[in-house]
This record gives sequence, structure tokens and C-alpha cells, in this order.
Amino acid sequence: MLGEKLDNIRKLNPLIENITNYVTVNDCANITLACGASPIMADNIEEIEQIVAISQGVNINIGTLGSVIDSMVLAAITANKYNIPIVLDPVGAGASKLRNDTLAKLLDNAKFTLIRGNISEIKALALGASSTKGVDADVSDVVTLENVDKTIDFAKAFAKQTGSVIAISGAIDVICDAKDAYLVFNGHELMTKVTGTGCQLSSMAAAFLAANKEEPLLASVAAVATMGLCGEIAYNRMSSLDGNSSYRNYIIDAVFNLTGEALQKGARYEKR
Amino acid sequence: MLGEKLDNIRKLNPLIENITNYVTVNDCANITLACGASPIMADNIEEIEQIVAISQGVNINIGTLGSVIDSMVLAAITANKYNIPIVLDPVGAGASKLRNDTLAKLLDNAKFTLIRGNISEIKALALGASSTKGVDADVSDVVTLENVDKTIDFAKAFAKQTGSVIAISGAIDVICDAKDAYLVFNGHELMTKVTGTGCQLSSMAAAFLAANKEEPLLASVAAVATMGLCGEIAYNRMSSLDGNSSYRNYIIDAVFNLTGEALQKGARYEKR
Amino acid sequence: MLGEKLDNIRKLNPLIENITNYVTVNDCANITLACGASPIMADNIEEIEQIVAISQGVNINIGTLGSVIDSMVLAAITANKYNIPIVLDPVGAGASKLRNDTLAKLLDNAKFTLIRGNISEIKALALGASSTKGVDADVSDVVTLENVDKTIDFAKAFAKQTGSVIAISGAIDVICDAKDAYLVFNGHELMTKVTGTGCQLSSMAAAFLAANKEEPLLASVAAVATMGLCGEIAYNRMSSLDGNSSYRNYIIDAVFNLTGEALQKGARYEKR
Repeated sequence: MLGEKLDNIRKLNPLIENITNYVTVNDCANITLACGASPIMADNIEEIEQIVAISQGVNINIGTLGSVIDSMVLAAITANKYNIPIVLDPVGAGASKLRNDTLAKLLDNAKFTLIRGNISEIKALALGASSTKGVDADVSDVVTLENVDKTIDFAKAFAKQTGSVIAISGAIDVICDAKDAYLVFNGHELMTKVTGTGCQLSSMAAAFLAANKEEPLLASVAAVATMGLCGEIAYNRMSSLDGNSSYRNYIIDAVFNLTGEALQKGARYEKR
Repeated sequence: MLGEKLDNIRKLNPLIENITNYVTVNDCANITLACGASPIMADNIEEIEQIVAISQGVNINIGTLGSVIDSMVLAAITANKYNIPIVLDPVGAGASKLRNDTLAKLLDNAKFTLIRGNISEIKALALGASSTKGVDADVSDVVTLENVDKTIDFAKAFAKQTGSVIAISGAIDVICDAKDAYLVFNGHELMTKVTGTGCQLSSMAAAFLAANKEEPLLASVAAVATMGLCGEIAYNRMSSLDGNSSYRNYIIDAVFNLTGEALQKGARYEKR
Repeated sequence: MLGEKLDNIRKLNPLIENITNYVTVNDCANITLACGASPIMADNIEEIEQIVAISQGVNINIGTLGSVIDSMVLAAITANKYNIPIVLDPVGAGASKLRNDTLAKLLDNAKFTLIRGNISEIKALALGASSTKGVDADVSDVVTLENVDKTIDFAKAFAKQTGSVIAISGAIDVICDAKDAYLVFNGHELMTKVTGTGCQLSSMAAAFLAANKEEPLLASVAAVATMGLCGEIAYNRMSSLDGNSSYRNYIIDAVFNLTGEALQKGARYEKR
């Protein structure tokens, strides 16, 4: 089930337009290639409409906001116009007024297929960044098996409000739409010591959505499980001299080598 | 013959100014160091003239066009003024009006020592990006031994029109000026799964041109052969766990370790 | 003594705001994580004050100056306002009027806890970039045991003028404030073949300063010794196939694995 979602990327080789931060952009490009898609990173507003029009998926990541905010909004509107799946990664939501304002502008102007972040970011987004408020985000900042039901309720409510799939990354990953929820248990805590594993997941998720347009929820679950499983595979490969830099390479390598069959076998997830 | 072209970089240690995309810029800097040159990546228009004036080579890559277009044009004009070799990498030529307009502006204002891209990019450039048209680009998008003569004719005509060496990257690489053509057979298809191997080659080519000013065609052939050969050496080093991220590192490592003698032995090329 | 400086980063996990060049920014983020801090790279002027206010350390690196100069000045002023340690890395000082003007603006508007660069950059800075001149920089561009006393005198005078710790990187590193000077002998010459080892050191130094606010001089010595020692550890790990790209990864890996105890044992330094 999840495995074929990955196989489909390799069959279709979708072009994924990313407007993302300059910190982790190279890793985003290489993981996009690793999973079987092709990346493009055009950010000049004059070419956004043409580039989005030839893409099969779009990823918007607000990690750095130099002079790309208008390009992001236009990319989102254009993706909606052509019915192209689009991901929003609200990096640092809540950390500044500019980030909140930018996120509000994005959510007010477009519908995202998937919104992916950690619990603090998604909470900040649900509470403050949208001009249409009302979601109860009284949930813990650490998702555990004990409190996960409350997190699911929150995420479903936010999914209902936005029309998006919501993916909350953490020790346990929660992925849901307004109706159904999945938990993914793959991953390794060392992933938090590599800059941009979240950014990379968002880029890769755009590829999964592009190749599996009819099933955005399962495509998102497959992307999350792929990233987590590859974090485990990469960790098992580490020698005593390796640290977070080699680990970064090993994660992308693991995505490159992961087959649909291996994903199917290695994914640890359940429907809630 | 090709080997000494590499040796000359190590002897002269030229400074190479790059105005390039933020996706692959780090790899461009490291491969520039690997081949024996020194990189600088100044892109603010206020310092372009001063930085180009102290450089021995310049590389312009249009992969991302945020707010650097005017800087690119000024860098090209300044390089011409000081007779400094300059490379143009027309990334994504044909994909948007902005890219075509930018390329036309660059070609109208300056002469490039080398223009390097894949066949689609070079075709788009020859057909649409220049304001002085007229080159017949009725050639296949995949260069094979069967159709390579047609590609050579096209590339020679474009070389004649622009006064540049033209290098077309592919399974077979075609490098020519208006008069002579070379084919390079080195390389590995996995290189297409690493973001920016083309960008890296363009940066490195600027170093080869800077250190071998009197022989731009052979310097370009040496750069192309170096990249391809190092793609082969790096591939032979890969373990079953390695993927495109480790491969990226191995390619740059191979350039670092490649001697002029090893290049001379390993280069597979012919004059046509 | 130096070892606890590193341990303190791991205890406090400070947030480090970096406005730095897009060439080496990813390595800066990963080495910040490797030493135990958390990086953020916000550069849009609208959010600078809020992001600096939640940070424990700031690093300003002028490697690329696209449209971030005003953000840099505001970040420096804000860091001073909140008494947050701040590092200045004057990349390419002296290479263009823009760099000199930018550095003068930074020095005129804020006090930096640490200024770190190579001898040419620090000399250019002392001589030309500040509007308050007067430091004698008649010192050699290569620091050796023979001429180091003259370099120390120069650095102390510049430290006195700026109120900053001055760290001069080279085969022998000189770190001093107006009163005391240290030499660090760790390091390996291959580090100059990796782009951005200086940038990485500056980012990491901001973390050392953030976690050791009361002892900026010793925190800076610890940062310099960490970078040099990890350059040695990484070099010892290299195989015959490895080059500057793998070396880059190994250096960051070594920082990730370095304990305070290992730093204490491996640091080779003396007070002058």
C-alpha cells in the first residue's frame, strides 16, 4: 500500500518546484532526486507562473524569507489554479510577526494539499497565523502515546478548517485529514541533529503527492514513513567516527536505495 | 595534453568569481578548490567590478535568478573588458520567458569564452534566447554516435555565431569551436541523480580556462573529461549502501585526488 | 578549562542567529548542531529584532552581501541592546569598497564580542574599514613563531580599539583581548581546501560565547581549539580515496563526537 506510493514516483518522475530556504536547499534537491523526482528551485516572481505550470508538485518552505514572499503566494495561487499538489512547511511559525503574517497570507490565498511541521509550528499556525481562527490547540508540545488522541483531535479540526492533510512530525508522527488519522512510528532522534530533515521531508512529500494525486493522505503517510525509515537505516550504518554530517548523507543515500517493497516492510504505522 | 591543463590550475591557483544559484553553490566552491583554484561568490552589484577585476576567471549560472540578473550582466561586461575567461551555464533555458530574456541580455552584452549546458538548454539558447537568430537546431534531444555529426554541425554554427566554445553535456559530450570538435566519452549516468553536477562542471571549467587562456577549446575538453572521469572513479568507489549523496562527495573527492597524469590516462575522447 | 566551555554548550543548547553567506550556510548550521547549539538563519529585516531577541548568540558573516546589509546592522544593534554575544566574520575584507563600507557601518554601530578572520582580513579591517583608525598593522601576512609577537601587539591594539576579542586564524592561531593573548597550534593545512571552515568556526564561536558569557576570551580560544583539533581528527580518518568533500563531513562529524574531556586533552595552546 505505502510501497506503491514510492514506486509511483519512480514511474512518473514528477518535476517539483521548491521555493525554500537557502540553508537546506541542496539537501532538498538531492532527496527529491533520491526518491525519483526532479527538483527545480525557481524563486523569481517573474517566472513563477510559468515554472509552476510545468511542474507536477510544489513545495513552499518559509525557513528564510529574504525577498521571496510574493513569489510564494503567487506559486500557491498558481498551483491551485492548475490543481497541482502543494505542500506548506511553516518553519518557525510563531517566532516572528513576519512569519505569522506570511503564513496568514499564504493560507488566505490558497489551499494547501499538505501542511507539515512540528507540533509547535502547527499549533502556532492554527492559533495565530490564519485570519480564520477557532481551532483548539490546547495540546502538549511533546506527542506521546498517552496524549496522542488529543493531538489527533486538534489536527483533524485544523485539517477540516484548511482542507489540507496535516502532518505533525515528532517521536510519533501524526498524519490526518478531517476524517482519518494515521500514526507513524519510524524515525530516530538523531535526525533532529541534522539541519533540515523536516525541510527534506516536505520536499519529498511534494513528490509523493505529485505521483499519487488521488490519495493525498496515504501519499503523505508514505512520505513520512519513508523519511523515518531511512533515518533508521542510516543510523544503523553509522560507525563510531560518524556524526551528524555523515548521517545527513546516509539518510539521502537510504532514500535513494529504498524500494517500494522495503518501504512496505519497514514502515511501522497504524490507522487510528 | 589534457593532463597539463589540470596541472596548470594547480600551478596558478586562479581566483574564480561565481554568480551562481544558491542550490548547488557549496559544491561549486568545493570542486573549485578540489581542482586547484580558489572560489569567490560575490553577487552584490556594487562590488562586481572590483571582484571581477581581481579574478582570473568568471562563471555565470542562471539556476536561480532572485535579484542577481544585473550583477550577472555587469560581471560579463567587466570580464570582457579585462579579457578574463568567462563561462555561461544557461540552466533551464527555454523553461521561462525570464530565463530566455536574461540569456538574451547576457549574449547581447558580452562574449562568453565557453557556453555549457545539456542539448535542450543549448538548443533553446540558440533558437530563442539570442536576439541574433539563425542557427539550425533541428537536432535530437539525445546525442548518440549515430546522430552526433548533426549535433556537431549545430554546435559549430552556434560557436561561430557567438564566438564561444560550445560544450553540450550528455552520454556523449560534444565540445567545439567554430572550426574543431571533440567528443568525450567519460561519465556515468548516475551523475544525473546528483543535483548540480553540471553547475560544478561549469565552475571547474572557468578554472581550466583561467589557467589555460591560450587554448580555450582544449581547456574545455579537459574540464569535461575531468568531470566525467571523476564520475567514473567515484562510481567505482560506491558500496551497496551508498546513494546519490555519498556519490556527490566521492565525485569532488576524485577531482581533489586526480593528477594531470591520471587525467591524461583516463580521458576517453577523440577529435572529430 | 577549555573542555567545560564545550560542555556548557551541550548543557544550555543556545539558539544562534546567523546572517551569513549562502555558500557555506548549510555547513554552518550542521556544525552549530554538532557542538550542541541550535541554528536559525533569519535574514529578512522585518523579523531581525524579534529573532535576535529570542537568540542567545548572533553571528554576522559578510561572505555574500546580496540584500542583507541592513539586516546585519540591525542584528548587531539589537544584540548589543540585549547584551547578546555577537561574532563578526569579515570575509574578504579589503577586496571591495562595498565590503569595507559594510564593515565600517557594522563597527560604527555596534560592538562585537569577537571578530574572527585571517590575518589579511583583520589587517584590512583594522586599517581601512573602521572610521576610527590608528592601529599599526605592519605585520606579516603569514604568522610564524618568529613574528608572532608583532602580530599579538597588533591584535591587542585592535582589541583595545574595538572592545572585541580578536581571533586571527592561520597555521598558528592568535586569540587575544586588550590584555591577554593565547596561541592555538591545532589544525591542519587541508582545512584551507574546504570552503567555509572559517565560516563554520565563526558560527561555532557564537555558540561558545553564548554558553560562556562571562569568559569571552577563553570561550573564543575553546572554539578555535575545537575547530583545529577536529581538523586533525578528521584528517587522521581519511582514506586514500577521500578528498576535500569527505573531509568537510569528517570535520563536522568530529565536532559532533568531541567531548569536553577530549577537547581538554587534545587542545594545544599556550598563554602568551
